[in-house]
Amino acid sequence: MSKLAWLRKPIRGVLMDITGVLYESGERKAIEGSTEAIKMLRSADIPFRFITNETQKTREQLDGLLHQLGYDVFEKEIIMCVPAAKKFIRDLSYRPFLLVHPNVEPEFQDCDQFSPNCVIVGDAAENFTYENLNQAFHVLNNNKDSILISLGKGKYYREHGNLVLDVGPFAAALEFASERQAIVIGKPGEEFFRMALDDMKLRPDEVVMIGDDIVGDVGGAQSVGMRGILVRTGKYRTADEAHATVKPDAIVKNLKEVIDRIVSMDRPYKPILPQ
Amino acid sequence: MSKLAWLRKPIRGVLMDITGVLYESGERKAIEGSTEAIKMLRSADIPFRFITNETQKTREQLDGLLHQLGYDVFEKEIIMCVPAAKKFIRDLSYRPFLLVHPNVEPEFQDCDQFSPNCVIVGDAAENFTYENLNQAFHVLNNNKDSILISLGKGKYYREHGNLVLDVGPFAAALEFASERQAIVIGKPGEEFFRMALDDMKLRPDEVVMIGDDIVGDVGGAQSVGMRGILVRTGKYRTADEAHATVKPDAIVKNLKEVIDRIVSMDRPYKPILPQ
Repeated sequence: MSKLAWLRKPIRGVLMDITGVLYESGERKAIEGSTEAIKMLRSADIPFRFITNETQKTREQLDGLLHQLGYDVFEKEIIMCVPAAKKFIRDLSYRPFLLVHPNVEPEFQDCDQFSPNCVIVGDAAENFTYENLNQAFHVLNNNKDSILISLGKGKYYREHGNLVLDVGPFAAALEFASERQAIVIGKPGEEFFRMALDDMKLRPDEVVMIGDDIVGDVGGAQSVGMRGILVRTGKYRTADEAHATVKPDAIVKNLKEVIDRIVSMDRPYKPILPQ
Repeated sequence: MSKLAWLRKPIRGVLMDITGVLYESGERKAIEGSTEAIKMLRSADIPFRFITNETQKTREQLDGLLHQLGYDVFEKEIIMCVPAAKKFIRDLSYRPFLLVHPNVEPEFQDCDQFSPNCVIVGDAAENFTYENLNQAFHVLNNNKDSILISLGKGKYYREHGNLVLDVGPFAAALEFASERQAIVIGKPGEEFFRMALDDMKLRPDEVVMIGDDIVGDVGGAQSVGMRGILVRTGKYRTADEAHATVKPDAIVKNLKEVIDRIVSMDRPYKPILPQ
């Protein structure tokens, strides 16, 4: 397949991961060319959304950080796991035990957390202590109807130059101990991608997803019918290009390179109006 | 099947778990009847071994504890994971990174731990910190040929009256993050049970295994051809009696009840000499 085959179909919308695409985790600066790329997308009038499994920051904090880094974004353009998970547990009347980062605990303060029958595990980082994991296990073990919700299922991410464990391994630990499967709210969960598509009112085949996570971003997007583009920034590693199951539609240096292509092509991206 | 069907074949040897069978984890006293049961086995001249995934104590410490609790045992009767793992890595020249309990770290002091190409994960308890798990992940991630060894794969055990996570969930976390399978040295690994059988010079169908772990003890023993007996002490829970895949050959109140039956039966247990 040609390297540019992914450009042959119209692109009417763009989904992007944030960490590793707009900035490197743990670094307080934008990835080269990324602020310009977002400006170009907005000038070209191509709808876009950010879709992130970030669960160490609230939407407001993340929006604030992006502005500090020079990004011109709106809070409503950021699709996050925590609001989606809150809606899920409210609709089904679950009372959560939180194994999440202290930064996002306040977001759940209006949820009934008494006598929990549900564990919500996010990227808790230093909060992943033996004691906290034992408590989460007890909630699952004491009630066979209690459920495990994982905010994404990423394996690892890059922080201060090192790879560190993401939520996925800890969800896997609780799955193994409690003999049940986590409900994944976040990438690569299909429902989460569909929420973003609905928000843009676009079909999967009209949208490309750009991310640094071969499985969570690229594989997840492809599984709902989007094109998946891998950037060589963030947690990208050379080995990702030979991944056993996921083959990206394109692999690019960074966000700038892919957005350059999208906005500069001979306008196959304008809406094709009904005849 | 009759409840006593497991007694119809000769029993020429007995394997027993320690924690949850001889004493409750975290409690400094023997389980009622268990010291007497061991005395009865020895008087009846039935060979026995203790087989344990205990990786918070050395063999010497465990032997010392059993004596304090009133057990008349010999160190050589205790089959443990750590010596088996040490033999394994020595034979194959692996250099371990240790994610184990501080008590057993000294047992590895004569192993080359420079530039590790192998992670050994045991029941590290409070040593299961985010930082230590990240370090273990790096060893696996930085070298695709590095291996993960799990000292048993228990899900949880009882300590001070509460269930706490065992090594298994943390091995599962590292398996998920590093996309490789752990080599299990310990129960329910078949090799580990075979080591114990070899030590007694008995065949699997001549031996019963007694434990409180439906999967690790009962299922593991049955998978090599032994009879597996579940005791209602230790981490036993009522739900174990309806386990989806493992059906014990018998379920008994405690060690005493099963040993009573074994020693008091109409001597089908004496060796059947060749004609």
